[in-house]
Amino acid sequence: MFFALTVILSNSADPDPLQDYCLPTQAQQHQCKSSPSPSDFVSRVLGNAPNFQPPQTWNASLLSSANFPALNTMGLSIARAHLGVGGTVPLHYHPRASELIYIAEGEVEAGFVDSNNVLFAQTLQPGDVMILPKGMLHYQYNPGSSRATVLASFDSQSPGIVLPGPGVFGSGIRDEVIASSLGGLDHATLEAVKAKFKPRS
Amino acid sequence: MFFALTVILSNSADPDPLQDYCLPTQAQQHQCKSSPSPSDFVSRVLGNAPNFQPPQTWNASLLSSANFPALNTMGLSIARAHLGVGGTVPLHYHPRASELIYIAEGEVEAGFVDSNNVLFAQTLQPGDVMILPKGMLHYQYNPGSSRATVLASFDSQSPGIVLPGPGVFGSGIRDEVIASSLGGLDHATLEAVKAKFKPRS
Amino acid sequence: MFFALTVILSNSADPDPLQDYCLPTQAQQHQCKSSPSPSDFVSRVLGNAPNFQPPQTWNASLLSSANFPALNTMGLSIARAHLGVGGTVPLHYHPRASELIYIAEGEVEAGFVDSNNVLFAQTLQPGDVMILPKGMLHYQYNPGSSRATVLASFDSQSPGIVLPGPGVFGSGIRDEVIASSLGGLDHATLEAVKAKFKPRS
Amino acid sequence: MFFALTVILSNSADPDPLQDYCLPTQAQQHQCKSSPSPSDFVSRVLGNAPNFQPPQTWNASLLSSANFPALNTMGLSIARAHLGVGGTVPLHYHPRASELIYIAEGEVEAGFVDSNNVLFAQTLQPGDVMILPKGMLHYQYNPGSSRATVLASFDSQSPGIVLPGPGVFGSGIRDEVIASSLGGLDHATLEAVKAKFKPRS
Amino acid sequence: MFFALTVILSNSADPDPLQDYCLPTQAQQHQCKSSPSPSDFVSRVLGNAPNFQPPQTWNASLLSSANFPALNTMGLSIARAHLGVGGTVPLHYHPRASELIYIAEGEVEAGFVDSNNVLFAQTLQPGDVMILPKGMLHYQYNPGSSRATVLASFDSQSPGIVLPGPGVFGSGIRDEVIASSLGGLDHATLEAVKAKFKPRS
Amino acid sequence: MFFALTVILSNSADPDPLQDYCLPTQAQQHQCKSSPSPSDFVSRVLGNAPNFQPPQTWNASLLSSANFPALNTMGLSIARAHLGVGGTVPLHYHPRASELIYIAEGEVEAGFVDSNNVLFAQTLQPGDVMILPKGMLHYQYNPGSSRATVLASFDSQSPGIVLPGPGVFGSGIRDEVIASSLGGLDHATLEAVKAKFKPRS
Repeated sequence: MFFALTVILSNSADPDPLQDYCLPTQAQQHQCKSSPSPSDFVSRVLGNAPNFQPPQTWNASLLSSANFPALNTMGLSIARAHLGVGGTVPLHYHPRASELIYIAEGEVEAGFVDSNNVLFAQTLQPGDVMILPKGMLHYQYNPGSSRATVLASFDSQSPGIVLPGPGVFGSGIRDEVIASSLGGLDHATLEAVKAKFKPRS
Repeated sequence: MFFALTVILSNSADPDPLQDYCLPTQAQQHQCKSSPSPSDFVSRVLGNAPNFQPPQTWNASLLSSANFPALNTMGLSIARAHLGVGGTVPLHYHPRASELIYIAEGEVEAGFVDSNNVLFAQTLQPGDVMILPKGMLHYQYNPGSSRATVLASFDSQSPGIVLPGPGVFGSGIRDEVIASSLGGLDHATLEAVKAKFKPRS
Repeated sequence: MFFALTVILSNSADPDPLQDYCLPTQAQQHQCKSSPSPSDFVSRVLGNAPNFQPPQTWNASLLSSANFPALNTMGLSIARAHLGVGGTVPLHYHPRASELIYIAEGEVEAGFVDSNNVLFAQTLQPGDVMILPKGMLHYQYNPGSSRATVLASFDSQSPGIVLPGPGVFGSGIRDEVIASSLGGLDHATLEAVKAKFKPRS
Repeated sequence: MFFALTVILSNSADPDPLQDYCLPTQAQQHQCKSSPSPSDFVSRVLGNAPNFQPPQTWNASLLSSANFPALNTMGLSIARAHLGVGGTVPLHYHPRASELIYIAEGEVEAGFVDSNNVLFAQTLQPGDVMILPKGMLHYQYNPGSSRATVLASFDSQSPGIVLPGPGVFGSGIRDEVIASSLGGLDHATLEAVKAKFKPRS
Repeated sequence: MFFALTVILSNSADPDPLQDYCLPTQAQQHQCKSSPSPSDFVSRVLGNAPNFQPPQTWNASLLSSANFPALNTMGLSIARAHLGVGGTVPLHYHPRASELIYIAEGEVEAGFVDSNNVLFAQTLQPGDVMILPKGMLHYQYNPGSSRATVLASFDSQSPGIVLPGPGVFGSGIRDEVIASSLGGLDHATLEAVKAKFKPRS
Repeated sequence: MFFALTVILSNSADPDPLQDYCLPTQAQQHQCKSSPSPSDFVSRVLGNAPNFQPPQTWNASLLSSANFPALNTMGLSIARAHLGVGGTVPLHYHPRASELIYIAEGEVEAGFVDSNNVLFAQTLQPGDVMILPKGMLHYQYNPGSSRATVLASFDSQSPGIVLPGPGVFGSGIRDEVIASSLGGLDHATLEAVKAKFKPRS
């Protein structure tokens, strides 16, 4: 016989949000604030964000619904990265969003790899825009001679960030699996890479 | 470095609702009633709605999930408008729904303006149906010699209504912005229009 | 090894349509008309629809994107049913839409059965509205003493209609399956029901 | 005038979930567990499920978000059916999901009926796969000489199951409606079928 | 009887795109390019866009799927506006997207009006971010003493732009409707505003 | 001024497909077959798939809309993997689908890494089910003493497969970026890993 079980979570058939905006209240996360103020729709986090300090060669700040609640139900988030000369935003992907980057200053090489392992890389100048498809591995690198700044927007309030470096080598996956996933890597080389990431203890 | 922040709101990858129906309980808005009764799925609001009283020349009643909770997760809402001779449902748009109108009695001129400022207006007779695309400015007007009645359905449980008249002229936007948005309108004319709308105090 | 195959169909990450409207051209169904006229957004089919003729006791007309192309991408369709005294819109369901009914004239008993086989039936008067959830079996019946008219809107441009009567008994499903699906129905009774539906030859 | 009512439920414009995973806590169904364990992502229900016992000729177990909470926001569920010789999974449909079946052992005739009452039936061998479109009536039948096992996956965490047998004949719908929906079935035959289903008292 | 009509357009139940990317070919708009080059994913339009020339006080450039085909299926678009001192991006809304603005230089007052006619306006400095909800009227204004630059991202490849100024006053809507929508505006004032917009001839 | 550009691609506001099924015709990929046959809904590819041959230690076959066209618009696909003793399905992720695995025979260790680099690994027995969230890195490994078989279903007709091994090391990304993404890996170790993957020439 079929099991008949009651499902208690609900969502909506509407492809759109159900109200103009919904800023979660502190106490009950699924309630919307009744009277948000104009400043609730503004974040000054990026304006106040410090630049990276040597020996760092880059930093990045993300405004998502986690630190800017007004983004809830809005389908958007934004990040800004500063890259020193030779600095790199390391290879990563966003499981829940495409990314559209705009070069605000400096020179940036941006690249993504599609699911056939084809690399699409381009050197970008200020004002240039590049699209990085959802879920594809990508990076940004400063090949120029001065600081570069990149603005990135995402089509999700919570794009997520996955870094395969620490994900593969620093999460405690057993060696057989990592070695096999890297073409049959030998033990010594594998340990050399793993040493770069502290495993989760 | 990337900010890693925890997101606490959730929605579903399902494009459909997650249960047959979900009538919110009073106390906790995101819980579904465990045993709704047949009458919960019925609204008698339109059947009991009074007609407009002179000097009004029209009225309209909307059944959305706000006053008919059974519409929650159903992707639909409905409105009915009565228009006296020469009466107008003023220019407005629905940010979250398309609208399909059906003429129940009388004669109605309905029109919408697309995003290239092209007007699509038609005179409709009983039984005629017209579609007004999502987010487009539209109106209904009774050019006939007797009362008209219009039924309107929406593809959202909460279509929203934006009236640009009070929105532009009665919300307290600074004059420079309104004037500039209206082709460089002079101060006297602007004040004449604003006088029609009481600003929010 | 993984199979790597190229996928050639595409759709969009946007939860909304990609343009104000898209009326398909005759020749190429996925192209939008470049300059639709106002009358393209109007259907006069319901206004001109004849009423049912005895011995019929009901009829229903559906405006979907199949016969009203302007509904394409609009997320809505509409139907109107006339029911003579004792007439019934037979049990059916819409696999792709919820249905919101409005009683325009007469008295109507409407009912739906949820996935736990619970019946929700109500007698409705003019102006009353009832919601029939997506995919649930439902019917309308005229228990009154005069003609009834029902307007129904759907949150899909193509709601689909499934009638379990002809679907189960008139589609040529083998007897073992039908009998077993009906609690172990005996052969004679099964044949008696099947006789009501001409199998597809 | 328009009614202006506040809507308190919210959903998101994101077509994706808003986090990697969200296992509901017991106490508050819309909160996600803060630190789920690896075993939370595993269900051993099917592994432990008993087979059917004569006189039963089949059984089926469904893992949905109701009994496997980790499926919440994942857009998937799974079922397994065992069919004795001549056994039938009775005619039913899923209002919220398509179904993809895989034959694990034995021989299975699977069929679905589309909305034009056309039957698509095929006899399947181990390793064969068949797709049953969302909302379409379907069945599985074992025409072979040994036990059959079917795995079924669904594109919803909560596909829903509607059985038109008990839904039509056992839910208490008035006789006029059932008779009319079955081509004008006579009273005696109707009662014979209804007798197979206990009405909800 | 029900009308049974064949629907020929199709879309997908997947909430995600169906491939990594899909750059439309020139000839057949629904086919994806088989081997796009890296430069296809880059637009240099904004980098090359000229600034506004007096007497203009602002300009804005939008990169959508219409002029940057790689945005197809990506759910994102971007715009950049330059505002001279006292310049205004006039009141408008996007029917198909929320907008997230980032102040790149100068000072900007941004505001939106919700569906209750409440204004949310804020003065923003470089690095500040503000969210403007989908379908809400909004503007940007430069109250400072030097040029301002705003970057705006949208959660649609085709957000659409509706300007109520020309939409209401320049589209040829009949005077009765406009007057009634503006609180019963007198003929002279109405003509004064209409004179600012050339009607579509 | 705003750029006004015409968008020619369209999709639908319906969250559901627009017809029961849509099997693409050969010639025009966006047309649906007018009369599909029952066998069109069946794939016998997995039933006929050969097992892996030593020295291979695993293989996997995916049925997606690319090789089983009936999956178009169905929101589902399926894969089957055979794993010899010690065999591994290498680390990969699906950018467009969650994955639900069912152990058909043997013992399988399955694991995924979330976006905080936390590993969720479990040893599974026949009948066990595990969910692997969309876009998360995962693997399957046979720690047992006999062949293992895994069935995997996906909530997309085209889930996509990204293997970070060849994606990072075999796609031609410049060494600075790879080294920086791996914690500052030295040149010799990097070359040792790259040697395992033939770069795309």
